[in-house]
Amino acid sequence: MNILEAIESRRSIKSYDPHHVMPEADLARLMELAKLTPSSFNMQNYRFVLARDKELRRQIRAVAWDQAQVTDASLLVILCADLNAHCENPPRYWAHAPKEVQDALVPALTPFYEGKPQLIRDEAMRSTGLAGMTLMLAARGLGYDSCPMVGFDPAAVAGLIQLPADHVVSFMVAIGKPTQSIWPRGERLPDREVVFTNQFPKR
Amino acid sequence: MNILEAIESRRSIKSYDPHHVMPEADLARLMELAKLTPSSFNMQNYRFVLARDKELRRQIRAVAWDQAQVTDASLLVILCADLNAHCENPPRYWAHAPKEVQDALVPALTPFYEGKPQLIRDEAMRSTGLAGMTLMLAARGLGYDSCPMVGFDPAAVAGLIQLPADHVVSFMVAIGKPTQSIWPRGERLPDREVVFTNQFPKR
Repeated sequence: MNILEAIESRRSIKSYDPHHVMPEADLARLMELAKLTPSSFNMQNYRFVLARDKELRRQIRAVAWDQAQVTDASLLVILCADLNAHCENPPRYWAHAPKEVQDALVPALTPFYEGKPQLIRDEAMRSTGLAGMTLMLAARGLGYDSCPMVGFDPAAVAGLIQLPADHVVSFMVAIGKPTQSIWPRGERLPDREVVFTNQFPKR
Repeated sequence: MNILEAIESRRSIKSYDPHHVMPEADLARLMELAKLTPSSFNMQNYRFVLARDKELRRQIRAVAWDQAQVTDASLLVILCADLNAHCENPPRYWAHAPKEVQDALVPALTPFYEGKPQLIRDEAMRSTGLAGMTLMLAARGLGYDSCPMVGFDPAAVAGLIQLPADHVVSFMVAIGKPTQSIWPRGERLPDREVVFTNQFPKR
């Protein structure tokens, strides 16, 4: 599928065929593509938890407003981030880069984030946003639909997936085969509210 | 370009042809596609500031570690978010949706975010992450390269673009025509560090 068509045809789908089983090859390909998502200093702070166990899915659904896609989709990915990625052996992020690139980036990463908890959290959310969009568009390319979700209790989900204390849950993406047609796309705000040239207008 | 190829061929490019001028039709198409990015409750909290003025670009470069792509790229987009999108007339986000969808979503949006500043900020970062990834992949489809950037002084950039007090700057994306080949892609962390099944391992 063409990239522009993938963006235009992607919709957030909530009804999935609960009997569809995603082939392992598709799952591996999705993860391979998601891992190509760019990240600040290439620190790859995103983490993907694949909820594959049926009982775990039921438990997550119970803390996610009972939304059917949690159990019915072929795959449920919980996007998390490691809040310490900036100080976990940074040289490995550029082990094959030219020396001048390594010299410029390696010493700069840890000081950029260290002692700045809001910036670290911002990067966790931004990075998982980037990764989630890659995942949803890759899914389109492999013949799937998807749904990004924030409607759940993140603390409860953190408990269910044994989230480490220095990690954070961002959002979830359900991926599967749709079972019904969807209503027309939601309203798009007009450009004058979303796109600005050079500056926001004075208020 | 195929979506999977777009994801695989995208790299963060820092050297651009400063003489290339992006056709207005490409710019319009990029924004049209970026605006299709999904958002929580379809509130479209992302805002795109197109830095087109050359002097503005120079001023931004001066607070962005003097990185050449800020002035040399054909387009520089500053991704911002409106922290009050959840309470700015929510019914308009689903004006054309079926009544049962409107009835389910409209009353739920504002209470979901109201009085939760960290959640609101998380959503700003997550949503701009999603939008930035759409923008970078759309750029590939239109024959451009791109570079996501967090290496700048967000307060200084906020001043330069007259950021409203209830908005936040997230990151920037430079888009243009590359002028040189790039070093090999940075290391990818192994699956065992990034992809987990059902739970994180006990530590």
